[in-house]
This record gives sequence, C-alpha cells and structure tokens, in this order.
Amino acid sequence: MDIIVLRPTATKEDIQHITKRLHGLGLKAQVSRGTERTIIGVIGDTSKVTEEVEDAIRAMDAVEDVMRILKPYKLASRDFRKAPTRIKVRDKVIGGKRLAIIAGPCSVEGRTMIIETAMMVQKAGANFIRGGAFKPRTSPYSFQGLGEEGLRYLAEARERTGLPVVTELMDPRDMELLERYADVIQIGARNMQNFRLLLEVGMSKKPVLLKRGLSATIKEWLMSAEYILSRGNQKVILCERGIRTFETATRNTLDLSAVPVLRELTHLPVVVDPSHGVGKWDLVPAMAKAAVAAGADGLLIEVHPRPEEALSDGEQSLKPKVFQKLMKELAPIAKSVGREL
Amino acid sequence: MDIIVLRPTATKEDIQHITKRLHGLGLKAQVSRGTERTIIGVIGDTSKVTEEVEDAIRAMDAVEDVMRILKPYKLASRDFRKAPTRIKVRDKVIGGKRLAIIAGPCSVEGRTMIIETAMMVQKAGANFIRGGAFKPRTSPYSFQGLGEEGLRYLAEARERTGLPVVTELMDPRDMELLERYADVIQIGARNMQNFRLLLEVGMSKKPVLLKRGLSATIKEWLMSAEYILSRGNQKVILCERGIRTFETATRNTLDLSAVPVLRELTHLPVVVDPSHGVGKWDLVPAMAKAAVAAGADGLLIEVHPRPEEALSDGEQSLKPKVFQKLMKELAPIAKSVGREL
Amino acid sequence: MDIIVLRPTATKEDIQHITKRLHGLGLKAQVSRGTERTIIGVIGDTSKVTEEVEDAIRAMDAVEDVMRILKPYKLASRDFRKAPTRIKVRDKVIGGKRLAIIAGPCSVEGRTMIIETAMMVQKAGANFIRGGAFKPRTSPYSFQGLGEEGLRYLAEARERTGLPVVTELMDPRDMELLERYADVIQIGARNMQNFRLLLEVGMSKKPVLLKRGLSATIKEWLMSAEYILSRGNQKVILCERGIRTFETATRNTLDLSAVPVLRELTHLPVVVDPSHGVGKWDLVPAMAKAAVAAGADGLLIEVHPRPEEALSDGEQSLKPKVFQKLMKELAPIAKSVGREL
Amino acid sequence: MDIIVLRPTATKEDIQHITKRLHGLGLKAQVSRGTERTIIGVIGDTSKVTEEVEDAIRAMDAVEDVMRILKPYKLASRDFRKAPTRIKVRDKVIGGKRLAIIAGPCSVEGRTMIIETAMMVQKAGANFIRGGAFKPRTSPYSFQGLGEEGLRYLAEARERTGLPVVTELMDPRDMELLERYADVIQIGARNMQNFRLLLEVGMSKKPVLLKRGLSATIKEWLMSAEYILSRGNQKVILCERGIRTFETATRNTLDLSAVPVLRELTHLPVVVDPSHGVGKWDLVPAMAKAAVAAGADGLLIEVHPRPEEALSDGEQSLKPKVFQKLMKELAPIAKSVGREL
Repeated sequence: MDIIVLRPTATKEDIQHITKRLHGLGLKAQVSRGTERTIIGVIGDTSKVTEEVEDAIRAMDAVEDVMRILKPYKLASRDFRKAPTRIKVRDKVIGGKRLAIIAGPCSVEGRTMIIETAMMVQKAGANFIRGGAFKPRTSPYSFQGLGEEGLRYLAEARERTGLPVVTELMDPRDMELLERYADVIQIGARNMQNFRLLLEVGMSKKPVLLKRGLSATIKEWLMSAEYILSRGNQKVILCERGIRTFETATRNTLDLSAVPVLRELTHLPVVVDPSHGVGKWDLVPAMAKAAVAAGADGLLIEVHPRPEEALSDGEQSLKPKVFQKLMKELAPIAKSVGREL
Repeated sequence: MDIIVLRPTATKEDIQHITKRLHGLGLKAQVSRGTERTIIGVIGDTSKVTEEVEDAIRAMDAVEDVMRILKPYKLASRDFRKAPTRIKVRDKVIGGKRLAIIAGPCSVEGRTMIIETAMMVQKAGANFIRGGAFKPRTSPYSFQGLGEEGLRYLAEARERTGLPVVTELMDPRDMELLERYADVIQIGARNMQNFRLLLEVGMSKKPVLLKRGLSATIKEWLMSAEYILSRGNQKVILCERGIRTFETATRNTLDLSAVPVLRELTHLPVVVDPSHGVGKWDLVPAMAKAAVAAGADGLLIEVHPRPEEALSDGEQSLKPKVFQKLMKELAPIAKSVGREL
Repeated sequence: MDIIVLRPTATKEDIQHITKRLHGLGLKAQVSRGTERTIIGVIGDTSKVTEEVEDAIRAMDAVEDVMRILKPYKLASRDFRKAPTRIKVRDKVIGGKRLAIIAGPCSVEGRTMIIETAMMVQKAGANFIRGGAFKPRTSPYSFQGLGEEGLRYLAEARERTGLPVVTELMDPRDMELLERYADVIQIGARNMQNFRLLLEVGMSKKPVLLKRGLSATIKEWLMSAEYILSRGNQKVILCERGIRTFETATRNTLDLSAVPVLRELTHLPVVVDPSHGVGKWDLVPAMAKAAVAAGADGLLIEVHPRPEEALSDGEQSLKPKVFQKLMKELAPIAKSVGREL
Repeated sequence: MDIIVLRPTATKEDIQHITKRLHGLGLKAQVSRGTERTIIGVIGDTSKVTEEVEDAIRAMDAVEDVMRILKPYKLASRDFRKAPTRIKVRDKVIGGKRLAIIAGPCSVEGRTMIIETAMMVQKAGANFIRGGAFKPRTSPYSFQGLGEEGLRYLAEARERTGLPVVTELMDPRDMELLERYADVIQIGARNMQNFRLLLEVGMSKKPVLLKRGLSATIKEWLMSAEYILSRGNQKVILCERGIRTFETATRNTLDLSAVPVLRELTHLPVVVDPSHGVGKWDLVPAMAKAAVAAGADGLLIEVHPRPEEALSDGEQSLKPKVFQKLMKELAPIAKSVGREL
C-alpha cells in the first residue's frame, strides 16, 4: 500500500484525514500534487500495512486507487532468500541438478498395479512414485480412492523400489495418516486456497507439493505458499498444472511461462504436471519436453499400466512404453539446459 | 457417455472391443457408419456409466471423442424435480415470492458492530444477517475472523432481531460449532470443490448456501450441489458471486446469465452476491437491481456501519445510507418481475 | 507513466539516467527512497508520455515496474466531459430518458422479411431497426449477407416505418455505401481493434455503435472509442455484447457490470446486446430486463419472424410474440430506474 | 450437425418435422429412443449442412442440443492432407527440418536501424527479417509505423542480407504495397477474424503468417486459415502468440500446447512468437526453448538494437547479445527434437 491516488474531487480535509490515519499506523505521508491528480506516497515499513487497511483506504470517497509496490508475500520471495531452495526427500533432492520425475497413476487402484507401476517407472528413470489414495472427484458418484489401504500399498511400492511417495491430502483430519505414509504431501489444485489445509501442512515436517489452482494468479499461488512457510514448514514445491481458459481443445492451458516467472519471484523449486495441463496422453510428451526446456525442476506425469481400464484420468495417462520413450527423449533436452535425468 | 465417435483409422476389431465392453456394463451398442466417421450410440441406462469408464474409453486409440448426452447430475436436475425448491429457514423462506435479502458485514469484528448492523439492515428490510466468524483470506497475515466468539455475537444479533444467521464453514472440524450457531451454512467460493466439506454439510440438517467457485462452470457447480444432495441434505441454495475473467475494472465478472440458466437446469433457489461480484461499493446498487430483474431469489449484500474502518472488504461494503436507499429502489423492480421485498 | 519502481539493484547512475531522460521529455523526477524500493514520481504533463516511452522505460534493467496513474484515454473520459453525451439519430435520441430499442434480424435475408420485421418491432415499441448486409461469419462457407441489396431493403424498411437503420461496416472500402444507407454504423466485436476501420468511421458524420471485443478490457474498448473520437466523430455509442470466458452454458458471458463501470469512466452512452451476450433466445428476456435495471441506455435485440428458418443466429433470435411480451415487461422496470420505453 | 438431442417434451410431430427438414437437405434421419432422451442421427454428406442450418435447428423448441461430429474446416484439416505442408519463401522453407527464425524489431523505425538489425540477426543465425511498417496500436496517440517508407527500408535490408521479409497487413487497401515489398504477409492477432482481410490475402500468391487471435480457440483459428485456403492460397503459416487469460504476471499466456494440438488437426506449419506471448524480454529465452522442444516449426522473436529507445514493444525486445546467446542455446534443443537451426 504505497501509493494512494486521490480523486480530482478530493479536498484538503480528505488529505489530512488520510495523513492522520497513516501516522496512526506509524507511517509518513508524502503528498505530491500533479496537474491532474494528487497522490500520497506512503513512507515507512509498509509491510505492516495489511490487506484490510488497504481495502479500507480504498473504501474512502476521496480515494481513486491504491497501488501496492511491494509484493504481498515475504518468505516465498526471492528478496527474502536469494539462493534456490533445494528440498531433500529421503535420498533424493528436488531443486538440484537432477530433475525430479514423479510418475505413477492418478489413483492407487490396487496393490499389484501400484507396485507394478512403481517398478516400471523406476526402471525407466523416474525417481518418485505418485498415486492418489484420497481423490477429489467432480462427481460424488465417481471412484473416491482406496483411502488408508491405498496409502499402505504406496508404502509397499516404496519399500520395493526405494522411490519416495508423493500423495494427496484432502482433509485436515487425514493429516496423521499422511504423516505416517507419505514422503511428500500434495495439495491439489482445488485446495490451493483451502487455507485450513495449508496451515495444517505448514505445521508438518514433510515437504509439500502445492499445485496451482485452476484460476489462481501466480501472486495468489505464492500467497498460498506463504501460508505454509509462515507456519514453519520451509519445504514447499510449486507445481504448475494448467489454468482454466476459454480453449477447449485441451483440458486446461498449461502455463509454462509460470516457470521463468517464478524463477524471478521465488526461491522455491517448480515442477510441471503436463498430464493435467493438457488432459490428453498424446499431447503429454511434447509438453513434458517443453517444460524441461523452460527450466522446470521436475515433472509430474501420470502413467498407468493399462489406461483403458483406469478408474480415473485414463484419457491422460501414458502407457509404459510411451513413458519409457519419453524418458529417453528428455535426456538430451535436460542436458541442453544444464540438467540431468 | 452416449455417443462414441471413432477415428477414421478404427478397425472392425476396435468396434468389437468397444461393443464387448459396453455389453459388460449391461449396455447395447448401436453402430452407425457415416461417410467420414463411424459412431457408436450407447443404449440402456447410461446413468450407470461413471466418469471413469468414460475417461477410459476416451483413452482407447480408436476413439476420437465421447459425447455425453445426459447431464452428469441427477438430484440437482430439473428432470428430477420439476417444482422449484423452497427452503424454510426459521420463519423465512428462500425461493418463495419474497426475496431473501441477506445483509451484513464481511466479517464479525465485534459484538456491538454486528448487533448494530443487524438492527440497521433489518429496519431497512433485510430478512437475514450475514457475517463471517471464520474468514478465508488470501494472506496469512490478514485478519482471520473471531472464531467461536464471532458466532456467539451473531447468535446474539439474531436474538435481538429475529434475523436468521448465514455464516461460513471453512473446516470440517468446525462443523459442530456451526450446527450450534448458524441457520444457514455458507460454503465459500474457494471451497466449492472442497469435497470433504461438501460431504460434511451434506449430512447436516441445516440449509447450505453454496457459492460458485471463481472459475467453476455451471455444470461443476451443480455437481458440487449434487455432492450435498447425495448425502441427504436437500436444502441447497446456489449463490452466484462473480467469476474470474481477464477484466480488471471489477474484482470479478458477475455472471448474471447464470440465473436464467440455472432456472432451466435446476429446481434449487439462486441468490446473487453483487458485492463480491464487482468488488466496489459504488457498482453494487446497479448490479443488485440487475440481479433482481434477472430473476434471482435473493441477494447477499455486504453492509458495514463504517467501511473505512472495516477489517475486510471495506472497499465493497455499502454504508447504511446507501443500503437503505437501495432497498427502496429495489422494491418496484421486484414487483415488476412478480416478487416482493 | 507516473510512478517508476526501481529494482533493489538499481544504482545512482540508473537513477540519473532515468531522471535525465524524463527531463528530455520536459518532465520532472521526484525520487523517494523507501526501505525496500526506490521510486521515481514523474511530475509534469504526463499526458505527453506515450505508450512507447513507457514501454522503453520498462525495458531498462534497473526498472521493476512502471505504474500509470492517469487513464490513457482523454476524449472518451468523464474527466474531459462531465455531462452524458446524447446522440441524435433522425428524430430519435440515444442516451436520453427514452431507451433505445434496436431490434431486428441478425442478417437481412430478403426484402419482405426485413420490412415485415421492421413493422412488427415498431408496433411492439422498438425505435430502431437493425439487420446485417455484410456479415462477419466464422466459416467461409456460411451466408455472408446480401451486400448492397440488403442495405437497399433496410432503407425501404426505414421509409415504411420511420425507424432509423443500424447496420454493420466490415471493410473500409464499403464506407461510402454505408454512408448512403445507414443511420448508425455498427463496428462488430471482431473489428473492435481493426484500427483502420475505426479511423475511417472517425471521419464520418454518422453515429457509430462500437461493440466490445470478445476479450477486450473496458480500457481497451474506450481506447477504441478514442480512435473514433480523435478523428472528430463525437457520436460514439458503446455496446456490451458479452465477453469470452471459460463458461460454456452460454455463448458468451454478458458483463453487465460494464454498464455502471462505464458510467463512471465515460460520458458516452452504453447499450447492451443480450442476444449475442447469451446466445440462446430463452435467456434473452431475463438479461434484457437485467440490462435495463443496471442502467443501460438501450438494448440491441435479435428478432426474426421465423427463427427456425433464419440464415444466421436462429438460436438466439426472439420470435415476434416473445419480443412483444418482453417489451411489455420492460416498461415497469424502465420506469423503476427513471427511464421509459 | 450430426447428432440432434431432443428435449424430453418433444412429440412425434416434432420428430417428423425435423426428419422432413433433413430430407429436404438430402440427408437421412436415424431416430434412437433412449430411456431418457430421443436422439436423431444425421446420415449423409453432413458437410453440406452449414452453420446456419445448425443454428436454425437449435432454435426449435423440441431441440435440446445439436452436436457436430465432423470438424467445420476441411482444407486446413489433416483429414484433407496427411503430409505436412512445407512453404517455400525465396530460398528458405518453413515447415522443413530447419527451423524458421524470424527476427527483428516490432516496428521499422528508420533505415539504419532495420539494416543494422537485419545484419545482426542474420549473423546470429536468423533466416527471416521481421518489422512492422503498419502498426496496430491500442492508442491512437502512439507511433503508427512509417508506412511505405518502412517497407522500402525492409526491402533494402533484404537486399543486403538475403533474408526474406515478414511484415504485417492491416488494411485491404494496402494489399498492393505489401505484394510489392513483402515475402510473407503477416495477419496480426487483432485481425484474425477480419474476414475481408483474410479473403484479400487468400487471393494473393504470397505466403501468409496468420497469428492467433487474443481469445481465439484453435478451431476458430483454423476456420480463419480456411478462409484463406478457400480462396486458393495454400501457403498459410500459423503463429501462436499467447492468449488472454486472468494472469497478469505476463502480457499474455503463451499456449504452447497449441503446437502438438495443431500437429494432430492440421497439415499447416506452426511457429511461435514468445515475445508477444510473455511480453517481457527476460522471459523470452526460456519460452523460445520450450517452443522448440514442443515441436514448433519456427520462432518469431522481437530483437531491437536498443530496446530502451524503441518506439514500440521495447519491454519485450531482446538486445543483440541476448539474442545471440539464445541462438546458441537453441541449437542443441533443436537437435534433440530432430530439427536444426
């Protein structure tokens, strides 16, 4: 809340009134009278000025607009920490030279299938296994996940392969379960602004993979990261997964420019989920390559042993062969941008 | 999942494979060979075909597209119930001839202010008091609400005025508290697809005011209503509150066409929140009038005794005088469309 | 270009460099050093600072952002002219107490049909006849309009009824024809930023009805109006016709909040086209009423004697009976907001 | 227009009425009565069914929806031509193994600067020079281009370097000029649905670079290509340049998934313009790499010898050194996806 633009009708009394209010907040007001508008610059530690004060000042009749100069997030900001954050997960690192390849089915459908998938993706070069035990589904009549049973199977898949487990939390009441079984806790796109869930994982020691909301701006996304960071958990991984636009040829519009934008704004690692981003398996390889070329720290890819029988997201899951081929094709691109698989 | 469009490359074997799969689901396949595409019509009770089967069929190489003919929601649909649903809340009714005017501050900031506001809005003609005790805020550093204390003040305001209380639930763990104090439980826009929360209020006997998500399609919104209805709670009120678009002159774009669209698709009552829809108090009166003219069953309006001191949403809150004037101006418009205040 | 925000890395030399550049433009620089950022306020007649200078300053390494305080449009602005502009078209006025009801088919399909329609809509209370002779169609294989023949039929319809003619210009080379036959020249949504066409109608004496582009911000829309005004034609009518969003239940999302927003920003009259806004005839009456309640100066409504045989937009055209009923229902709403039909 | 879904209220007479209408169009109707809806499959050469017939059928009371199965474009479709189209421009080819690198300033600002830029980008590896002589600017007060003078300078730059010239057409009346000076005629995003301009270039023998509209779906974009193709000009290059979304961190949202989507739908070559796509020079290199990795046939990149003095788009133009570095970094990525610079 650094620049207050007054309406042409603002009076001396209005200016005094605002100046007084700023003084009350321990701030100084610097009034500049232009030919067409008067503006008030706010001097001092404006980081103490909360959203609500800003809104309240905007509510004044004399005020045309309030422009904020500083970013509303702090801990997530590159101003706060210059060096990129690297997050250790068991013996793997997210944010380092080696890309994080997080592969697996949309949902854990059974013991055999998840173990089979974990072994396959590991062999192809993935370093994390993913799979949902709790599934946010648009319809109440759709498969909602196996729950704790699914988490147990994931743990078993980890035991067999050594791959750390990435899986989603939907309800603060399941936190304890997730703490027990997961290596990285995923917050889904639909929960990016489920603030209670964010505070909950903010108190955990587990790394959190925070997906971008369907219509979240990058600023809002970083504010959600800030919720987690502000509670003490410094291990946040951002995951671009497509935003909602008018285009219907793809399920979402994968916003790859978020990768270089986030590089400038934050020290947190950024991975990309091309599977949800486009929603059709045959478009996934091209976008996975593009994500790596754009500088992503990793990929989240849906792989299913038999997509035609999947209980969810069959349409966007890669068959094992397609995944294996993709991994081979990614290697030289990773190398071109100074990374490795 | 009623029409399956095959790719030009689909073979006889592909068709047999799909036909067999449909038989396995108890459905019949009717194959039509056109000059450029072959399509398979699915005959039988396709309501049993879940989203996942649809996705899995879409995953087949031979399939170009799957077109659904029936709506994915049932209990929320006008096909299911022809007559409009009227929801009784204490001695008031939402969905009847009289408009529901739900007014009050964004958040309960104290005992005096909420009682004062309740008395004022009642006098001006409102029939419900609103106010948040738990506030979803973009920033972790913003005022998050008074919690149970706020709920107690709301209950006191109800005692004084007789106005039923509408207030938001953010966390399933607060359900018991809300049951105790609220008359209508609000699910906020950011939680429209917080499915666990939906299931929770689905088991309550309290009416639920379900706000549209920031980027939710009308179909998804009705699917979220379906979550609640499917658990047995038939008292769902839909609330249009603006969607996210590229326009920045307003906080959101209020989609008033949702009102007549929902009239055709569902029997549930529809109210409109112009305050969040536009985000600037001086635009609220025009949009409130437009909402009534479009056929809304009610309005949700933010009113604050002193917006310049509000702890949240000051920018979009009406001052008492503006609210009183609006109520007077709404009366003849309501009458023009066969409603009353 | 009034506030320049510098990066934390900006040096004294950078500040001198920018200051010098501003001096070169006849402007003064007022440097304020905050705790976290230094900003430069630009003092003087910043209206001379064009978009390109702004962009060029943004291109400097030392600059984080440039914030503009003044609106980029002048002649269209309420600052420039306080009183609402009223536009006389033959014996009618757009922007006065009486609403402009511009009704008729999407395209002129023949002599009889347009005369028949004109007589019908006039009897029902419309005061302008609309119809396209040149049609912008998504497909090159669709009906493209009757051309000059269509314009002649429109003129004949005007002769019979006295209703002024509103019709679209698509090509600067047709300007002469339009000048001869039309009373109001329509610029379609797809041509809102066809700047050559704007300059062309800017040199005409005919009033121009400027439709909002499918994804145009209100600011861009006013800049397009500014193009016309800057060439000397002061008779511009703005027409909201829906913007493109992710919602698919309607053809577009009618942004009615544009009406009160424009009231604050501009003196130009604003009409609303609910037919294109929603794209389905059965939703049109509700949105027409809402538009009037929101304060629009008029409506553009597609009416066709037999929508099932229309050569374009059949889906969104009202049948005569529906239009007549709507006109009756609009009257009390118009009265409620101080207008008349 | 292949599947007509009837409302539950549709009668036998309605079905007969529709069937008769289809017969009149030389088509057969295949009626399927489901448990909840009756649908009519349309058999025969539905490519003759135009948009207007579809709309008119949708206008019938008995009809709930009309679903089109075939794509509305033909000549642009991969069904029509399997092999990718390669477009020869002087001694260069667009759509071949070698990527088309089209570099240069937003607008031609003078003789020296364009020749200097052409020589520089050529040396760095570009194979086309771009620059605008006619500039579509949001503001009527901004620099609008040098006109024919600019075209002459471009021609001179071509003479010196051998680089073919890509430049924009804004007005059908400038067609003759463009024919004389340009090698590839660019249609800008704002003119993607300026159908008269499309028909004009459709009659030219020059290749056309067709930019995607700011809010154009991929289907609409291909329909605009179809306009050009339908007039006989087979040399159309599609250029993705970002679409309009709610995100404000970038100027537009570059939709790179358009590249693999178009590969499936069309035989036309696809290039990407990351400069307009993101609007900030420091994000351009990452997105240029991503575009090549996604499979684009080329890039359109804004390069300016001194962005801080540019008369337009300074903010998004690369300095020579940055461009040179980018070209070196692109080479291994191009190689990874089977292409070369």
